Amino acid sequence: MWRWQSAGTSQGQQRAQTGSACQAGHNVKVNVLCSIRHYCKKSPKKLRVSEALEGSDVGSNITVEGWVRSVRSQKDNLFVHVNDGSCLQPLQIVASSELNDALLTFGSAVEVTGCLKQSPSRKQPVELLADRINVVGGCDTLEFPFKIKERHGLDYVRQYPHMRCRTNVFSSMMRIRSAASAAIHSHFTERGFIQIHTPVITSNDCEGAGELFQVEPSGQTTEPDKNFFSVPAFLTVSGQLHLEVMSGAFSRVYTFGPTFRAENSQSRRHLAEFYMVEAELAFTQSLEDLTKVMEDLFRSVTEQVLDRCSEDVDLFHQRVSPGHRAVVEAMLKKSFTVISYTEAIDILNPSSHSFVFPTTWGCDLQTEHEKFLVKHCGNLPVFVTDYPYDLKPFYARDNTDHPLHTAAAVDLLVPGVGELCGGSLREDRLDLLTARLAQAGMEDTYDWYLDLRRFGSAPHGGFGMGFERYLQCILGVDNIKDVIPFPRFSHSCQL
Amino acid sequence: MWRWQSAGTSQGQQRAQTGSACQAGHNVKVNVLCSIRHYCKKSPKKLRVSEALEGSDVGSNITVEGWVRSVRSQKDNLFVHVNDGSCLQPLQIVASSELNDALLTFGSAVEVTGCLKQSPSRKQPVELLADRINVVGGCDTLEFPFKIKERHGLDYVRQYPHMRCRTNVFSSMMRIRSAASAAIHSHFTERGFIQIHTPVITSNDCEGAGELFQVEPSGQTTEPDKNFFSVPAFLTVSGQLHLEVMSGAFSRVYTFGPTFRAENSQSRRHLAEFYMVEAELAFTQSLEDLTKVMEDLFRSVTEQVLDRCSEDVDLFHQRVSPGHRAVVEAMLKKSFTVISYTEAIDILNPSSHSFVFPTTWGCDLQTEHEKFLVKHCGNLPVFVTDYPYDLKPFYARDNTDHPLHTAAAVDLLVPGVGELCGGSLREDRLDLLTARLAQAGMEDTYDWYLDLRRFGSAPHGGFGMGFERYLQCILGVDNIKDVIPFPRFSHSCQL
Repeated sequence: MWRWQSAGTSQGQQRAQTGSACQAGHNVKVNVLCSIRHYCKKSPKKLRVSEALEGSDVGSNITVEGWVRSVRSQKDNLFVHVNDGSCLQPLQIVASSELNDALLTFGSAVEVTGCLKQSPSRKQPVELLADRINVVGGCDTLEFPFKIKERHGLDYVRQYPHMRCRTNVFSSMMRIRSAASAAIHSHFTERGFIQIHTPVITSNDCEGAGELFQVEPSGQTTEPDKNFFSVPAFLTVSGQLHLEVMSGAFSRVYTFGPTFRAENSQSRRHLAEFYMVEAELAFTQSLEDLTKVMEDLFRSVTEQVLDRCSEDVDLFHQRVSPGHRAVVEAMLKKSFTVISYTEAIDILNPSSHSFVFPTTWGCDLQTEHEKFLVKHCGNLPVFVTDYPYDLKPFYARDNTDHPLHTAAAVDLLVPGVGELCGGSLREDRLDLLTARLAQAGMEDTYDWYLDLRRFGSAPHGGFGMGFERYLQCILGVDNIKDVIPFPRFSHSCQL
Repeated sequence: MWRWQSAGTSQGQQRAQTGSACQAGHNVKVNVLCSIRHYCKKSPKKLRVSEALEGSDVGSNITVEGWVRSVRSQKDNLFVHVNDGSCLQPLQIVASSELNDALLTFGSAVEVTGCLKQSPSRKQPVELLADRINVVGGCDTLEFPFKIKERHGLDYVRQYPHMRCRTNVFSSMMRIRSAASAAIHSHFTERGFIQIHTPVITSNDCEGAGELFQVEPSGQTTEPDKNFFSVPAFLTVSGQLHLEVMSGAFSRVYTFGPTFRAENSQSRRHLAEFYMVEAELAFTQSLEDLTKVMEDLFRSVTEQVLDRCSEDVDLFHQRVSPGHRAVVEAMLKKSFTVISYTEAIDILNPSSHSFVFPTTWGCDLQTEHEKFLVKHCGNLPVFVTDYPYDLKPFYARDNTDHPLHTAAAVDLLVPGVGELCGGSLREDRLDLLTARLAQAGMEDTYDWYLDLRRFGSAPHGGFGMGFERYLQCILGVDNIKDVIPFPRFSHSCQL
């Protein structure tokens, strides 16, 4: 059984030990397969487990395919629970104990045919009276990392990136992630936004923050004259500048895809590859225009997820993070608070709480400050607006105020997570933007960006929302590695 | 005006020449902006152009924001066409010629308020009788690369990657791309597929084909001991192996995202970064199971795109690729042909057509062969099945036939493009898979992949469809750089 090993451990030895143990199970599997292929030609209606559980096919002959979650053998009867990932609940199979088989174990892949009946028990709406159970793929339960009826913690299952989707908790997570992703797409589509596939490879460094991954063909040196793209190319840290291009034609655009930071961190909060939803809106006059869009996105996606994945979400709210349901419901019930950065500093400064980082005006807010502000505002989401001008990148719109010089930028802070979204109005005044770029020596590099202000410029603004942080926020999941299918972080790129 | 220059050309000079020409327009813009900000507070109902054109708000006072597509001044009246990217059609604005303004030029950004009326002309359903036109961003028409009423070719507009979305043809393309993307997501969601965000950064080389991009933090050497991820890491060429992991829990999964090839090509057919839709299905017994899913995807997405973007698609079928509509309609009307690779060779060999590449059994099919086969089959899509075993990667299922040894792989060839999709049943027999991996010396690397066959394995298969090629196919677009917002290819990574 392959298992994730921290960097440097040899996997060769481990493999040699486990390789042969599974041979037996495999050989039988192939034999059974052949008979199934023949059988399938005259098989009855195929249903997903979720479809069978709906009950509208009660009385019909059906076939269900999936993986065994439990086997209970009584004197005359055999009870098997089969799940196919279409929902959290398994389908109960009831069969004559004659259909039992040494291969019919926890984790094995089966194809079951029989008549769908209403269940006499109140535990499930329907059950399948099986007249045929085929084990298409055996599973050596001794080697299989998950054990029947055991609740494996997220830390444990994280060791098996190629297998953890077969646990209840992680399969629920993947269904929620998929539903949240679909909800984001339909949210924006219904509101007339055009989806833009902003590029992963870019010659920009949008945030100017460093921590970039560089890209060159494998086996090639990164000599400046020999760059594949003729210029140094990086993995994107944000699609914002590309969205700004497109907002100048479509007014409302969004992108939803992977973004990257070469951050040397193995913390519960950081990934080298994570997903971001970004939106950009032309003819946007104020931060209020933006915060409305952000709040609307959060509410509508969360409501859709709670509605479509209620069982999966309940699993998290009951088992992983008890009590979190109330936090989510409060977020949906009350409107989000809005405070300015200056007000935030006024809240943080006199607090008796001892912070590691300073809270003087001009300092960036750290996670400890963000979490404090969320608590201070009743454990509810808080927008913090108008950050110090010097903290924000060149594209943030200058509020031209003084003596406290600020930019029209806004962050959304949420319970458990801290910063969930960051956005700003963009500097649409050519003279101010040119001056700031010139100050940074970037006037030439961003001449194309200045063109956007030269030809039919419109006031505009936008924001980004970290998708993994969003999932952590609504589910109460502590470690970001548990909300993404294949986490990438420093010293780890499994599979 | 910034313009794309082939690698090596200095952009500095060009910039110096054009920089000052636009200053005048800018300064005025800022002044106008201030008055708008005030005005907006009491503005009437805001509508997108597409909403206004629907006509249900006839008689209402509305505000529309967008960019000027044409200005025609008559003695008493001013006719302005305004587009905001929500659809191809502009909204006609009718105003007193007193509202004319030197800044009201082609390309400028405007905000227009007035009463929406039925139009007396048959050219448009409605028009806006404006009592206010604010130019929020001027546009120097001399410097602006696109000229009023001129039809700029795709080759020309490609030089302005930051501006081409403001032409009719490219904005139609982006709306179609967005609609096709939405259609793909809803197609799979409605059929019970779970969307998986397969990773961009991976330690696998799925195709075993080389041409990989490697990833390391910027400014760092790529010394083996000092890899950021502790192992060499690459940009994905396919999410297939990760989807196979997930198909073993959810039965039906898909991914839709960027994939990469470090191919040194500037051809009309290749990009370094392109989008791929991939699906994987457990309990799949035959190639026919797969071809059904592929054909269903093609049909349903195309029908949705034709339905939702009919005007935009018409623009391509009428202007860019006249006659292509009939090709698309024929594809939708008739079922796709299925031939085996061996039959394909039998068709190619006796043909009088002189091919550059050989057509003997065992040779890979080249684009010239693929296009010939499509023509041969009535210019309709053709599935080619059961390719020579030695041509296919380790994961393709061995058909264990002889003397012509084949694998259960299938490609879909389509008019104008050649290969659109590639798929296969996956080798689910542990002994055959282990032997093939051992032969290639990859047994250790893919031990985790063998685990998928050891624990509850199910017969499964899947395929990938190139999204850009799909768009080229249904729209009749010759150059792949014209169907993606920001094309990346060797020596080019603009913006």
